[in-house]
Amino acid sequence: MQKYTRLAVAAASGAWLALMATASFAESTMEKIVRTGQMTIAVQTQGPPVSFIDKAGERTGLAIELAQLMADDMEVELVVQDYDWKGLIPALLSGKADFIAADMTPTAKRSMQVVFTEPVFYSETIAFAMKDAGYKSWKDLNVAGISVGATQASSWADLARKKISNAELKEFSGGTAQTVQALTSGRINAGVSDKATIAAFMSSIDGLVVLDGDISREPLGFAVRPDSMHLLFALDNYMRLIRADGRLDEKLDYWWNTTSWEADHK
Amino acid sequence: MQKYTRLAVAAASGAWLALMATASFAESTMEKIVRTGQMTIAVQTQGPPVSFIDKAGERTGLAIELAQLMADDMEVELVVQDYDWKGLIPALLSGKADFIAADMTPTAKRSMQVVFTEPVFYSETIAFAMKDAGYKSWKDLNVAGISVGATQASSWADLARKKISNAELKEFSGGTAQTVQALTSGRINAGVSDKATIAAFMSSIDGLVVLDGDISREPLGFAVRPDSMHLLFALDNYMRLIRADGRLDEKLDYWWNTTSWEADHK
Amino acid sequence: MQKYTRLAVAAASGAWLALMATASFAESTMEKIVRTGQMTIAVQTQGPPVSFIDKAGERTGLAIELAQLMADDMEVELVVQDYDWKGLIPALLSGKADFIAADMTPTAKRSMQVVFTEPVFYSETIAFAMKDAGYKSWKDLNVAGISVGATQASSWADLARKKISNAELKEFSGGTAQTVQALTSGRINAGVSDKATIAAFMSSIDGLVVLDGDISREPLGFAVRPDSMHLLFALDNYMRLIRADGRLDEKLDYWWNTTSWEADHK
Repeated sequence: MQKYTRLAVAAASGAWLALMATASFAESTMEKIVRTGQMTIAVQTQGPPVSFIDKAGERTGLAIELAQLMADDMEVELVVQDYDWKGLIPALLSGKADFIAADMTPTAKRSMQVVFTEPVFYSETIAFAMKDAGYKSWKDLNVAGISVGATQASSWADLARKKISNAELKEFSGGTAQTVQALTSGRINAGVSDKATIAAFMSSIDGLVVLDGDISREPLGFAVRPDSMHLLFALDNYMRLIRADGRLDEKLDYWWNTTSWEADHK
Repeated sequence: MQKYTRLAVAAASGAWLALMATASFAESTMEKIVRTGQMTIAVQTQGPPVSFIDKAGERTGLAIELAQLMADDMEVELVVQDYDWKGLIPALLSGKADFIAADMTPTAKRSMQVVFTEPVFYSETIAFAMKDAGYKSWKDLNVAGISVGATQASSWADLARKKISNAELKEFSGGTAQTVQALTSGRINAGVSDKATIAAFMSSIDGLVVLDGDISREPLGFAVRPDSMHLLFALDNYMRLIRADGRLDEKLDYWWNTTSWEADHK
Repeated sequence: MQKYTRLAVAAASGAWLALMATASFAESTMEKIVRTGQMTIAVQTQGPPVSFIDKAGERTGLAIELAQLMADDMEVELVVQDYDWKGLIPALLSGKADFIAADMTPTAKRSMQVVFTEPVFYSETIAFAMKDAGYKSWKDLNVAGISVGATQASSWADLARKKISNAELKEFSGGTAQTVQALTSGRINAGVSDKATIAAFMSSIDGLVVLDGDISREPLGFAVRPDSMHLLFALDNYMRLIRADGRLDEKLDYWWNTTSWEADHK
C-alpha cells in the first residue's frame, strides 16, 4: 500500500512539475532577467537610424542606445539579436528575445499577438515645398492644379492620394531624394515624406521648408509578449523616467528629429 | 498495481483538467477572440449618443463605431449585446461580453470589480447663460441673488449645490430643455448641464452661451475583466493609434462634442 | 482498491491545495481587499510632507490623504503600516502591505522588484538666488567664478556638480536652511534644492527667488507587487479620476507645491 501511495504522489507530482513548466508557474520574463543578469532584445538588422551596423562596423542606433541605457541602469547585460523585419515578432513569441526594440507601428492586428509599450517616439508625415512658393500649411496643397510628389507605392503616396486628393499626385521611384530633386527642378509644387527623412535635406538645400501641420502622426513603440506584464511596466516606467530627466529627448534629437547621427555613423 | 497507478494518474489528470478550466491555464480573452474571430461587446440599449437604436432601426452610436473600427482593423467580427445600464458589469464578469463599450465613469467602487481603459472621452459639466447677462466664467455665478437651474435630482444639480453654493438652485423635472426654457423666459439667471447636451441648443437659441471653465471634468472609459490584461492593452493601444491619426477626434466631433449625429439618426 | 483510489485522490488534492496557496490560484491583492474590507499601505515613518506624525501626534501627509481618499471612495478601511525607508520594499514584497505610498523615485533597479504607478507627483530640483544678483535661469550659474551651495552629499550636490560644472560647488552639512543662510550672508551666489523645500523659505526671506527652469524633474509614484495588476490599474485609474475633478491638485497645492500644511501640522 505504501508503494501505491508513492505512485499516486509521483503521479500528482508529475502534474505539478508539468504545471511549473507552463504558464503561470514559470518564472516571469523579468524574473528571468534578474536571475540571468541578461536582457535580450530583438532588433532589425538594417534599419537606420533605429538600429543598424554603422560605418565602423558597430551595431548602433536609437533603439540600441535606449535599450543600453536601461540595461545599464538595471545593471544587467544587454544582448542584441538581429532579425529581418518579418522575423521580429516570431523571435519575440518564441521566447528568443525579451522585447522588440524597433520602430514598429502598434497596429490593431499586431496588438493581437504582442503588447506594445506606450509610444516611445512618433513618425510624422509632412509636406515640403520651396519657401518662395508661399504655401503655409500642407492643407494649402489640396487644390486642383497643384502637383505633389512622393516615393512610388509608399505610405506617403497613399496619404497624399487620400488627404491631398484635389492635387495631382506624381510618384517617383527611388526615395525621397528623387522627390526633392523634382521639386528643386520645378517639376512638382510640393512633396510628401516623413519629418526625419526631410530633415536630412534641409541643411543642403536652400529655401526648402516643411509646411505647417502633420499630415499624419503615427506612434512607434517597443513590444513584449502578452505574458511579460512586469517587463512592460518596467519599460513604460523607464521611458517616463528618461523623458522627465531629458535623456530621451537628447537621444531623439540626435537620432530621430535631426540627422546629427549621420556625421558620426554614416 | 498497474491499475492503481492508472487511477492515480487519472486523479492527477482530473486536477489538471480542472486547472485548465480555471484561471491562468484557460485561454486569455484575446486568445479567445483570435480563435473564434469574434469580439463581443456589452452596450447599453438606449444611451444616445454612445449606443442606441436610431430612427432607421439600426444599432449605432459613438461606442459602437469605435468598437467597429477596432474590430475591422483586427479583422474580426463585432458582436453587440444589449443590456440595461445595471446589466453591463454582470454581463462582463460572467464572461458573456469581452468588454463594456459605454460612457461609464471609472469610479473607485467599480474599479474593484472591473479594469477600466485609459479615458476615451470626457464628460464636462458646464454652466450656460444668455450672452447679454454678461457672465464670463461659471465662477461668476457663485454669488447670493443669482438663481441657477438644473435637471431635478441630477448630478448637475448636485454639482451646482456644491460648487455654486452661494447661488439659489432651482430644479426642473424633465431634462435640460426645461432648464433652457426657464432661462430664455427669464425665470433663472443661468443653467448647469453637460457640454454635449447644451451643444444641441446652441444653434437654435440666439444668444445662448457656454460660460468659461468646466465645473467638473469626468473621464469615461471602456472596461474589461481583471483577467483580460492583453485585451486591455490592445484597447488602450488602439485608442492611442486613432487619437494620433485623427480618427478618434472625427468620431468625437460627430457624436460627442456636437449634435451632428442628430440629423442623420434622431 | 477503493482505499488506494482515495489515497491517489488525496495526493492529487494535495497538489491542488498547494497550487491554490501559491501564485495564480491565490486570490489577487484586489480580491483580498474586497474580501477583508481593508487596504493596507506601507508608509515612511518620518517623511514630511508625504507621510509623518504631526505636532498633534497624528499620522498625516500627502500620501496618507490620497490613500485615505481612495479607501473612502472604495468604502474599505485604510490600514497604515510604518517603516523606515529601507523597510518599504521588503514590507511590500513579503505581503505585509498592499502598496507603498511614498515619494519613491521609480528607478530602473527598483522596477525590477516592484511595479510603479504612473507618476502621482514630481520632485523638481531648482536653483535659487537673491533677486538683485540678476540671474535669470539656473543655466546662468554655469560660469567660472560663481559659487553654488547645496546640502552635503545630497542628490542636489550631485546634480550641481554635473549640470553646473563650471561653477564652484560648496557643500553644507545640515539641510537647505544652511545653504539659504550662506546665500543671505553672501558666502555663495546661489543654491540648489527642490521646489517644495525652497517654497518654505520664500515667505520669510525677502528677495529670495527661484531661477527659471528645472535642473531636473523626477517622477514619484506608488508601488505594488508584480502580481497585483488589478490593484495597479485601480490606483492609476483613481489618480486620473481625482486629477480630472480637481481633488489631486487640491492636495498637491496644500502638501507639495507650497508649505500651507506647516501652519496646521508642524
